[in-house]
This record gives sequence, structure tokens and C-alpha cells, in this order.
Amino acid sequence: MPAVSISRHCCSESTNLENFRALVDEQIIDEIRALSRKIGDLRICHINATASGGGVAELLFRLIPMYRALGLRVDWRIIHGDAEFFRVTKSFHNALQGADFHLTKEVQDEYLRHNELAAEELSEIYDVYIVHDPQPAGLRALKPEARGKWIWRCHIDSSAPNPEAWGFLRPYVEQYDASVFTLESFRPPDLAMKRVAFIAPAIDPYATKNMELPTDLCRKVIADAGIDLNRALILQVARFDPWKDPLGVLAAFRQVQRAKPDVQLAFIGAMAGDDPEGWEILHSMQEETKADDNVHILTNLTGVGSMEVNAFQRGADVIVQKSIREGFGLVVSEALWKAKPVVAGKAGGIPLQFPRGYERFLVTSIDECAARIVQLLDEPAIAAEMGRAGREKIKRDFLLPRLVRDELRLIASLTAG
Amino acid sequence: MPAVSISRHCCSESTNLENFRALVDEQIIDEIRALSRKIGDLRICHINATASGGGVAELLFRLIPMYRALGLRVDWRIIHGDAEFFRVTKSFHNALQGADFHLTKEVQDEYLRHNELAAEELSEIYDVYIVHDPQPAGLRALKPEARGKWIWRCHIDSSAPNPEAWGFLRPYVEQYDASVFTLESFRPPDLAMKRVAFIAPAIDPYATKNMELPTDLCRKVIADAGIDLNRALILQVARFDPWKDPLGVLAAFRQVQRAKPDVQLAFIGAMAGDDPEGWEILHSMQEETKADDNVHILTNLTGVGSMEVNAFQRGADVIVQKSIREGFGLVVSEALWKAKPVVAGKAGGIPLQFPRGYERFLVTSIDECAARIVQLLDEPAIAAEMGRAGREKIKRDFLLPRLVRDELRLIASLTAG
Repeated sequence: MPAVSISRHCCSESTNLENFRALVDEQIIDEIRALSRKIGDLRICHINATASGGGVAELLFRLIPMYRALGLRVDWRIIHGDAEFFRVTKSFHNALQGADFHLTKEVQDEYLRHNELAAEELSEIYDVYIVHDPQPAGLRALKPEARGKWIWRCHIDSSAPNPEAWGFLRPYVEQYDASVFTLESFRPPDLAMKRVAFIAPAIDPYATKNMELPTDLCRKVIADAGIDLNRALILQVARFDPWKDPLGVLAAFRQVQRAKPDVQLAFIGAMAGDDPEGWEILHSMQEETKADDNVHILTNLTGVGSMEVNAFQRGADVIVQKSIREGFGLVVSEALWKAKPVVAGKAGGIPLQFPRGYERFLVTSIDECAARIVQLLDEPAIAAEMGRAGREKIKRDFLLPRLVRDELRLIASLTAG
Repeated sequence: MPAVSISRHCCSESTNLENFRALVDEQIIDEIRALSRKIGDLRICHINATASGGGVAELLFRLIPMYRALGLRVDWRIIHGDAEFFRVTKSFHNALQGADFHLTKEVQDEYLRHNELAAEELSEIYDVYIVHDPQPAGLRALKPEARGKWIWRCHIDSSAPNPEAWGFLRPYVEQYDASVFTLESFRPPDLAMKRVAFIAPAIDPYATKNMELPTDLCRKVIADAGIDLNRALILQVARFDPWKDPLGVLAAFRQVQRAKPDVQLAFIGAMAGDDPEGWEILHSMQEETKADDNVHILTNLTGVGSMEVNAFQRGADVIVQKSIREGFGLVVSEALWKAKPVVAGKAGGIPLQFPRGYERFLVTSIDECAARIVQLLDEPAIAAEMGRAGREKIKRDFLLPRLVRDELRLIASLTAG
């Protein structure tokens, strides 16, 4: 089972936990140090389906150098698969979120064949196995001789899974020593396990997408995209995905324009290579806004990357995340960390990220979204106060060290005694 | 014929020509001002096939706000087309570069039908029409009543065009008052026109991709990608295109590693949505380098945009552009403008951009490429001197004002008297 190689010389600022002392409660740092000493002899292995692309791989690329810098013995291994296997596991993924699913003999065979192969290939012995999402979930059952502790880490909202898919996966999952979900509400109702933990994701304040940037640099980047720095800017950063409601954002913006004709909208979306639905949404947004030079639709296909997103988030007046459905919605944490006021859909993990007292900016309709944007533009003191409260909230609950502490706590408690 | 709307409030630093006084020879600025006064009454129209995607649209988005800020009356219009039309014009594009082409009745009909439609729709009268590339090239012949001056601006290396494709297009092109090619060598040998001009492209030093960035910021961005700041970094920025020879870059890097085991390579490539060949090359590069944590392959699909490219160019020790064939290769100007030493393929417009005395860093083989990289790593004084000379060269010949001056000179000379 191939290991993912990560440069031993990684010197991102987030690799060294000490860099976080100035940002988060020092007790978190001290607890991480203590936990690391406690479990420093354990051999730990993360197992997932891909080393590139997707949120899980992105997170592991940040976490593993940090764990190693803490002295932990952490590997990262990948389950092999062909196109057919990934088609099958993608259907499991969607089915855990409630999509239609039909459990054929072929689907079962394909799934088990690759998990058996991975079980054979996994010849190294570990003390703790952390297995991510459905793709390699069968491993634990197929490797009974591996006596370490097994954790299934589910990143999916599986609160109402398709019964056929979950009926197949559940017996495999229930053989783990613990399972972890992002939110309590994501746990499948009938999961019978002694240990179920809930660990929310987090952002890395030192990553390119979140690092401090000089204000004048942010202004130059925004002006270079053709945006007027002297007028208000509304921003949504999201894939061109119906659940992120990009067309709803446009509709809300039209309403805002009626009250404030000068306002501008930037919509930054990443396109994946194989995303026909995304292209369709992008094209209909371009078509609908081609006569309006106050709407700017920007994508990674024309040079917009993490630093540009960072600069736009820092330069925007109001940040919107009008999701109808969300996994967790970390982009809200990114915005609040930059002390920006946010109007966002009441969905998934978004409410959890909001600072107390600002719940009225969680919206469930286009009208409400527009009204809340107008309010924040009209009352800059409230906008600024929400930004400050938001940054404090993210600092306390959604920066990388809190996530690391929660994971180490779970490992320590499972392996104690 | 729809006009492309560009915000009237664009406040990019490059919109205001005065911002270039500190960068380029002031005579260029003064000449642009004088030419603008001379032709300020003329109505000018740029016509191309798309408002987004591709180098021509990118350039027009920079040039048109600048022209307008100079007081010129410049519009930008788009020729309509459906998928079939763009398939046909794409085949003309490739055929001008020498690819196979078969001129059927259907191809001719499709091409002319859209050009006729565009001619009908173009109801406004202009004094100067600047028509870009093959897609709308038929317009001039199909609009005999439009008495302005017509310029055909070809951005393609058409030095050895497919005879069938060029045989069809040539009579349309020869009805223009002038044609413009990027390089003298790009001119089709049998083109019979009184006025043929050669105008090289240019970079915008104020664009996000080229703007000054603080050194410590560049270092953070590079470290955040997992690269060791204490060891040398080689960089190529190019699409995953066989003519950019990405696998040749890897092979050269392997040779460099034999002399200097510590060296690192970053390859930054943009993926388009519909680019199966690009995906194949990306995957084979990933496969070939998966065991080598000194090779970093980065793309726009994982958050790398113009600012990251800028930061990497500024932070790299040697920049490579190992093209086998090139249009112009402006990425060489981007690198030299940042005062970086460059090892590049002797192809297309690349030699034109090199500072005098450094032609030995133009290479035609993997061995030569590797040897020149090693030499620049071994002799940092030469590397620094090449960077300085390169920056001077770009400052003189390849910044935006020189391009603007050349275009205005052509317009003024065609319309004089």
C-alpha cells in the first residue's frame, strides 16, 4: 500500500506548533505537547483514497508535517483503485448524503476486491489506523490480524444515508473502535458503536489562503480585476454548485442594487476539470450578467488562486456564503478570521461558526440575504463589530491547533492503559 | 454584434499611463500622448471571438481601459458563434500553424455564414477596425460599405500554414489595409499586401502576475507549498503541453540532481477544462515523480493562481522555459522582468526576449538545458548579472507602453492625410 511522501524539509509556518502560541489559547498548545509526549511511541497511519485533490488530502498535507514536527510517528497511505472502484465509492459517498443507490453484486464485489487488495498490501504494523471516508472503510474487517486501534473518520453529512448503501457499509464501520463525524447531526441514527466522537475541521491561519497580506497589496489585486475601489464590494467564494446557490446570490445582489445602485459583486469560483454542471452554472451566470459591469465572475481558469481569494476576502465589504446545504462551510471561518462581516445560509456547519449575537445574519431566503447585506452596508459599525466578534470565535474554535488537540485526545483515550 | 462591457471605473495601476513614467523611457510615454491627440477623434473597434479565456481577450482587457484613459474612442466587439463555428475556426487556427486541414464545402459555409451574420450585425460605423485572428477575418470582404481602415491582427505563428486553409483565408486577408504579425518570421511567405507590420506582445508590470511582492511574502508562499527555502529551486511555469516539453524538464532536472542532489523543482501548470492531453501529461509527471519529494507539481486546480506564480518566479533560483515550439513565450519576459536568470528553448519569440550576451542559455537539448542550469547554480554572480541584464531588456522592449505605441503608430500612419 503506497505511502505518500511529504518533504521532510517542509518549512511552512504552520508546521511548527510554536508559531500558534501568539494566535490561540496557550493551554491548547501545552495540551498538544503533553498528548504528543504521551503517545509519541505509537505508530499511527492515516489511510485515504487520494494524495491530491479534495479536502481530506489538503488537510492531511497540512497535518502530517505538523504531527511529525511534534515527534509523532505518522504515516499516510493510499488505497489503490481504478476508475470503476472510484465510480463505486463516489456512489457510496453520494448515497451517504442521501442520494439514490442500488446495491448490486457488482458494486459489492468491486468495493471488496479493492479493500481486500489493500488489506494484503498493508504489511506494516501500526498501533493506530485512521481510515477516512467510505473508500477504504472495509479495511478493518478484512485485516482482523491487525490488532491496533481503528478509527473511521467520516467527513460526509451522513445524517440521512441511503438505507441500501449504509446497510452494506454499517457492519464494516461498526467493527472499528471509534468513529468520528464532523458534527453530531451528521451521525447516522442507527449507528451502534461505543465510541463516537465529533471533531469539526479548522483553517490554517498561515496557509496562503489565510496569511496576513498588506492592505495596499489586496487593493491592487482587486483593482487589477477591474473593480472600483471606491465603491462597496460584496463577495462570495464558492464552487459553481447548486447547493452554494450562485444564482440566488445574483438574485439577492439585484435586490441590493435597487437600494444601492453603486454596489459591486465578485463571485470567485473554482472549476474542476470534470464538472459539466459547474460549467453550465458558470455560463448561465455569465450570460445573465454580461450587460452589468458591476458583476465580476472570476475563476481559477483565469489565474485566480488562493492568494487572490485571500486578497478579495480582505478587501470585500460584506462576504456572502448563501449555501442551501453545506458540509461544514470552512469558507465562513476564512472570512470571519479576516474580521469580515458575513451573511450566510443556515446550513450544515455554518451556524456553528457564527459569533454569538449575530445569528440574524444566518439567512434562509433571497429576500433575507439581500436585506442583511443592505443592513451591513448601511451600518458599518455593526459590520466591523461582527468582524471582530467573528475573528475571536474562529480564534477560539476553528484554528488548526484545536483540531490537532481533538484528534490527539481521541487517540490518547483509545490507547490509554 | 455585441460589445464587451468593461467597467468605466477600472482603477488598475496600468490603466493610467503616467504610472509607467518611472518604468520605461519617457519618450515612449510622450509619443503615446502625441499619437493619442492626433487620432483622438477616430472611432476604433477591436473585434475578436471571445471576451474571456485566451491571450487575446486577456490583452484587450488590459489595453482597452488604457486606451480609453488616453481619451481614445475604442470599442470591443465579439463575433457570435456556436460550437460548430468554433470547431471550424479552431481547425483554421491549427492549420495556420501547419496542422492537417481539409477544406470541405461545410467548413466554408459554416465560416462564411457566421462572418456574414456578424457583418450584418455590425451596424455602427468606425474609422478603424482591428480584427483579431482567423475567426472574424472574413468580415472586411463581407462589409465592403464600411470605408474605415481595416487591420488584420494575427497572433498565430503562420510561417508555414497549411496550403488549403491559407488558400481559403488569404483572399479575405489581402483585402485588409494592413496586417500585423507578432514576429517577421510568422508572416506567411506568399502574403501579398502593401502594409505588413510586426508588433511583439508585452507584459503588464502592474498586473497581479508581475506586480512587486515583498520578499518575505514570496518565501511564505513557497514554503507553504512544502518547498525547502534553504535549498535551490528550479521553476518552470507552463501548460501541460508537449511543446512546452514538461517531460524534458523532468529529464533535465534528473541530470541536475546528479550534480546537485539537494536541488528542488517546481512545475506550475494551468489546466483548462477540456484538455485531455494536458491531464494525461499531468498524470504521467505525477506518476514519474511520486517517489521524489524534491519535485513539486502545482496547478490552478489546487489554488495556484497569478499571485502564486509571481511569488514562485521571484523566489526561484533558476527559471526554465524549455519550449520546443513557442508562439512568443511571454513567460520569459515575466521571469526576466523579475531579474531572474532563465534557461529557455531556442523557439518562437524566446530568443528576441533574451538580453545580449546570454544567448548560451538558449538551449536545444535536455543535456544542454541541464548543463546551463548547473552553471547558473554554480555561478550566482553570472545568474544575478543575467537577471539584471534581462530586466533592462524587458524594460526597454517588452512592457505594455511599447506595445501601445506600436499599435497607435500603425493606426496613425494608416489614417494620416
